Amino acid sequence: MNITGPQGFVANGVHCGIKADPGALDLALVSTDDHQPVAAAAVFTLNKATAAPVNVSRAHLAATGGYASAVILNSGNANAATGAQGERDAERTTSLVASNLGCDPASVLVCSTGLIGIPLAMGPIESGVAPLVDRLSGDADGGTRAADAILTTDTRRKETLVQDDGFSVGGMAKGAAMLAPNMATMLAVLTTDAAADPADLQAALAEAMPTSFNAITIDGCTSTNDTVMVLASGRAGPTNSQALSSAIHEACADLAAQMVADAEGASKLATVRVLNAASDQEAHRAARKIAESQLVKCSLFGNDPYWGRIVSELGSAGVEFDLDRVTVSYGDVAVCAKGVAVAHDAEAVQGYLQANRDIVITADLKLGSGQATILTADLTPGYIDENMRTS
Amino acid sequence: MNITGPQGFVANGVHCGIKADPGALDLALVSTDDHQPVAAAAVFTLNKATAAPVNVSRAHLAATGGYASAVILNSGNANAATGAQGERDAERTTSLVASNLGCDPASVLVCSTGLIGIPLAMGPIESGVAPLVDRLSGDADGGTRAADAILTTDTRRKETLVQDDGFSVGGMAKGAAMLAPNMATMLAVLTTDAAADPADLQAALAEAMPTSFNAITIDGCTSTNDTVMVLASGRAGPTNSQALSSAIHEACADLAAQMVADAEGASKLATVRVLNAASDQEAHRAARKIAESQLVKCSLFGNDPYWGRIVSELGSAGVEFDLDRVTVSYGDVAVCAKGVAVAHDAEAVQGYLQANRDIVITADLKLGSGQATILTADLTPGYIDENMRTS
Repeated sequence: MNITGPQGFVANGVHCGIKADPGALDLALVSTDDHQPVAAAAVFTLNKATAAPVNVSRAHLAATGGYASAVILNSGNANAATGAQGERDAERTTSLVASNLGCDPASVLVCSTGLIGIPLAMGPIESGVAPLVDRLSGDADGGTRAADAILTTDTRRKETLVQDDGFSVGGMAKGAAMLAPNMATMLAVLTTDAAADPADLQAALAEAMPTSFNAITIDGCTSTNDTVMVLASGRAGPTNSQALSSAIHEACADLAAQMVADAEGASKLATVRVLNAASDQEAHRAARKIAESQLVKCSLFGNDPYWGRIVSELGSAGVEFDLDRVTVSYGDVAVCAKGVAVAHDAEAVQGYLQANRDIVITADLKLGSGQATILTADLTPGYIDENMRTS
Repeated sequence: MNITGPQGFVANGVHCGIKADPGALDLALVSTDDHQPVAAAAVFTLNKATAAPVNVSRAHLAATGGYASAVILNSGNANAATGAQGERDAERTTSLVASNLGCDPASVLVCSTGLIGIPLAMGPIESGVAPLVDRLSGDADGGTRAADAILTTDTRRKETLVQDDGFSVGGMAKGAAMLAPNMATMLAVLTTDAAADPADLQAALAEAMPTSFNAITIDGCTSTNDTVMVLASGRAGPTNSQALSSAIHEACADLAAQMVADAEGASKLATVRVLNAASDQEAHRAARKIAESQLVKCSLFGNDPYWGRIVSELGSAGVEFDLDRVTVSYGDVAVCAKGVAVAHDAEAVQGYLQANRDIVITADLKLGSGQATILTADLTPGYIDENMRTS
């Protein structure tokens, strides 16, 4: 139950040779079943070192006025910091897909993920597109092959399907690291059979971001390739726009949570809640400061309820803060109140941290009514091991 | 050759019992030799969760108009997030010192470093001040005992002595982690026998910060206790103010470099240089973004010249940036020019990274004339090990 769940979409994934391992899928395609363009919307990374596929997809969406027939995605190479050749390679990739599908190249969007700074090997893509198109399928298997083909250091496939009254939203994503502060080394493609015009679709996607892909962080790094796309086939007919927004948000939040759960080297996941900040924006900034703190993340790995690091991050988050008011809790147990240690069942807190992979840290600033939640993971030797060498 | 190098200062360090290890010194005192107040200046953390000793020292300096007789420092407990009791404990500590020295309590400054959120054990301090004062010495040994007594996870004592024409600046510091972005879990005390009024001393100290203690980062965390102080005995008589500023800067930069060199778990030190940014301020922001990147720091640990992470950090640093112009070099070898990979001797770069503990990464933005340098360390399993448990 995935990206091919909504009516009108087909997908596939193959190994074309960008990755060395012949068993590793590395090229994915999601298309409308008749290869005709439908309403589409996308959100891209804010990194100024924008990868070629981001530039090309953005230009294609602008050229079509928000319509697309297909999305081609490769893993193993980000086609980022590859200059003019990278742009030509991304354009060529969309042309190959268009000629195989029989559609306009401008209606093909493109995403890449993997290493930065290495020219994209076009041989594998030139030979890979035909077999990729040949086995496009509207079954779940097709969607699964596509979801597998976009993974990099992910250890698990990430799929979702949200069923609503008369329509559905399907999706796939890859994550693993660099999950902040504006999306991630992450790609996500969503499909829906609801009918929507491009502007409404874009608004729904933008509205979903703050509390889904933009509310997760692994290492505070913003990737060059982050992209979230949605295509709406309209096969299920007109839909209440609020219901569609809500379903898109649910799909995004589900995929985002799957990303954090599969963060590189993670042994522990934390939901960091900041309550009663001066504003929602300040709550978000404070929660992010805690969630991105190397020291807080080390404490998480060690199951250490060292709340001193939480208040120290709050104090340096650049938000309104009064140490004499703050309460910090692990799970349901307050360990700090009014800015100082409070008597509590230390064994219960220790047990809570040790027994649960998913834990909740709450900081109540007692200043206003702003609140925010950020999902993060711990910092582990496994993360370092994953990231110390690219080869 | 340390904090007692300049004429007119005495120092000592003892074990009073804040640290459990009876061999670990944990209480330090630096005083003028006649215990009379002299011109003093200080810079404190910008963290809003300010520790009690920071508040007390700031108030004392305000009360005296910038004069101090002594600085008392303890390690093992930060006396932070300890509420009104923490303030009383910090005041009591200065009163104990004052009564033992025979000076005004307001002329005693106080610093603490160690764990946050735990009430300061006053018993050890009550009993420790008398022996601390008894063995105050103007010899280097006294300064060394003081420098030893302020260390926490540091593995090496940090001292400096800058000799100039007719005067000198001595200093001691502790660092280890949390070294950013506005100082660190760091304390530094400087002495000089140059004559200066408090305002000039404050100006010289403020001027020294941007390219010393504020140009280093370990983990991007800003501590609750950061303090840099300087006392000027005037025994060497009037001094050229530019020469004094210069010597204070040299002492600060030396201590800052020692801090990074002893960063928790570090196996590699990097000097991150950003050249030709739109402004010095943007260069600083970009250099800091690179230096604080978990991914860049993992690559450093792995001796991996993965410049893609450098340009990705530059692109997300919030500064003016044009990927098509940027050059990235490791040591003297450019690996990226005009935003793409350039042919280079990969073995030479690999050899450079493997053979040197201190390496230089240079990013040239080719936009303007702004430049900045930040010192940082790699992210290692040793850092995680050091920080995963407080006990």
